[in-house]
Amino acid sequence: MNPRLQQLRTLLHEEKLDAIFVSSLPNIFYLTQFSDFTTFDRDGFVLVTNNNQYVFTHGIYQEAVAKKVKDYILIPIKRENPISKSLKDIITKEKITSLGIEAFDLKVDEYERLLKEVDKNIVHPTHLIQKLRIKKTAEEIQAIKKACRLGDKAFSAILEKIRVGITEKELAFEMELFIKQQGADISFPTIIAFGPNASNPHHVPTTAKLKANTFVLMDFGVKLHNYCSDMTRTVFFGTASEKQKKEYQTVYTSQEKAINKIKSLIANPKSLIKANEIDLIARNYILSQGYPDMPHSLGHGIGLDLHEAPRLTPLTDEVLTDGDVFSIEPGIYIPGKFGIRIEDLFAIQNDTLITLTKAQSNFIEL
Amino acid sequence: MNPRLQQLRTLLHEEKLDAIFVSSLPNIFYLTQFSDFTTFDRDGFVLVTNNNQYVFTHGIYQEAVAKKVKDYILIPIKRENPISKSLKDIITKEKITSLGIEAFDLKVDEYERLLKEVDKNIVHPTHLIQKLRIKKTAEEIQAIKKACRLGDKAFSAILEKIRVGITEKELAFEMELFIKQQGADISFPTIIAFGPNASNPHHVPTTAKLKANTFVLMDFGVKLHNYCSDMTRTVFFGTASEKQKKEYQTVYTSQEKAINKIKSLIANPKSLIKANEIDLIARNYILSQGYPDMPHSLGHGIGLDLHEAPRLTPLTDEVLTDGDVFSIEPGIYIPGKFGIRIEDLFAIQNDTLITLTKAQSNFIEL
Repeated sequence: MNPRLQQLRTLLHEEKLDAIFVSSLPNIFYLTQFSDFTTFDRDGFVLVTNNNQYVFTHGIYQEAVAKKVKDYILIPIKRENPISKSLKDIITKEKITSLGIEAFDLKVDEYERLLKEVDKNIVHPTHLIQKLRIKKTAEEIQAIKKACRLGDKAFSAILEKIRVGITEKELAFEMELFIKQQGADISFPTIIAFGPNASNPHHVPTTAKLKANTFVLMDFGVKLHNYCSDMTRTVFFGTASEKQKKEYQTVYTSQEKAINKIKSLIANPKSLIKANEIDLIARNYILSQGYPDMPHSLGHGIGLDLHEAPRLTPLTDEVLTDGDVFSIEPGIYIPGKFGIRIEDLFAIQNDTLITLTKAQSNFIEL
Repeated sequence: MNPRLQQLRTLLHEEKLDAIFVSSLPNIFYLTQFSDFTTFDRDGFVLVTNNNQYVFTHGIYQEAVAKKVKDYILIPIKRENPISKSLKDIITKEKITSLGIEAFDLKVDEYERLLKEVDKNIVHPTHLIQKLRIKKTAEEIQAIKKACRLGDKAFSAILEKIRVGITEKELAFEMELFIKQQGADISFPTIIAFGPNASNPHHVPTTAKLKANTFVLMDFGVKLHNYCSDMTRTVFFGTASEKQKKEYQTVYTSQEKAINKIKSLIANPKSLIKANEIDLIARNYILSQGYPDMPHSLGHGIGLDLHEAPRLTPLTDEVLTDGDVFSIEPGIYIPGKFGIRIEDLFAIQNDTLITLTKAQSNFIEL
């Protein structure tokens, strides 16, 4: 028996749910290891009850699902056998009185259509599978590590491409080209931001051309065998002033302080690693040096999704423990002037903080 | 005044809605021409009432939105000023008694959160902006035509890359590389399918290597300035048998019959071009030649979305008229054997059926 199904059923019991209707692709992959459903259509769903597990899919996927998803009952979706009817039949047959749904994923009209014949009083939103996904197995950490290795290589390759006159778009394209040439995919659209453009943490690459003496921010990620990497580097193109070096060093030290705090807490088995405390150590250091507050959280979990639990934010009550994989990514952003961010991925494994991204992060002048 | 807002207000009146809350990115772009919001986060929303139009966005987009979306009232999203509260205030102030929402786009949990303070009895799902988007302006048809031109070029370029031993993945990569090198994006992940793999219309490229004497199906699209193209070509790599030529010719003739039917109906101003009739003409021709029924519809509208109205399916009651842009894409699929599909895009403009994709579609042996 698939150990994830066992864990899921334990959690179902704890959350007082008899079943969960799974619609999100990463969660379907997590349970079934089937990754052929597309992101632009609803090609399949999974239902896990106390007694059985089902996969619903359309005609064109039935052959592949039957072959690859062996321990699930395959229910073909047909006009005369819509999911709403199958769901109702299973609920009746298995006497389900409490059904979890993925309200973060299901659209309002899908909810109405798919659950048309289901008594809405038994339906409850749940993030149960995300909870399960927080703690990564050694195999999963290994998969993320491999994606990070490729990200390190992509960073080395892209440094060679940085030259006067290249545009943000061209540099982003070179980055994505390198990643895809290695047989991987990108985990999100690459952010390349020159100088003041980097003051928007979500900057979309433009046709702005690179000039001398400016920061170049690169935020990019690899998706390899369904697992994501994520890394940001900010290098200086030209010769930096003392002021610019101090700006970079402030971000670097901020990250270092967060890392050291986690390490010292791990060393003391009695202490909890509170995610909000880690955020505040990095955040407050930047504030203490006279820079504005970061407009984003210090870090996020990562795995099958680019952003998942745990969150390193000032307001969370999450605690970091073994099996967590997350980013630490402090930044300074001055509108109209510049933006600097350094982002690395870390795992806590066997009571050790492991750095998954290895590319050089101390100050680089090109 | 933005003419789209005027048209939208006319439709709001017809649908007995006082306002529409717009969440989908293509619809936000359609109304505001603002395309910087990302697909992986909820960066902004639009609300159009009878009297005003609003755009809601987070801190990092405020500068860009203020600059580019001039005739909208900008409402910053802040912790102390959530959308739910702003919505409630506007509903009260403007005496809104009927609010449209995009149930096809909004997630169940977003619905609960964003409309928390809104009386649910006044909320109604609507596809109003999609209805508006069906009829393309000359500028929009021109934009789709440009995307198609680039698709034609990509097809020519990719023919040069087809050789023994290349994998489906590699060929898909070359296709996407060419499109991105031209400064465009892809409108969906490229499908490359060799031989029997093409019997799944949604095939995901594998590491299968190309061998001689097999069909190569290529389904790909360009996204240029937010508008999509979509084209499928199936070429023969090697020397085709008479049987294989007949299979291809059947798909070709099926498409031709659909095209000729539309042309003859346009020529007669009294006749309606019923989309289901067009589907059935192509579908039934394939059946009449002894091949199995197509497992998909004959065609779909296209524009800001890859798939939008009108739909050319057996069960639709849609009628094709001036301003429609759509695909015609018949196919034959024999599991374990082969798949052939030919897809072109067409527009009806000034009572003429215009072919937007120009790449050769009669039988090609390489």
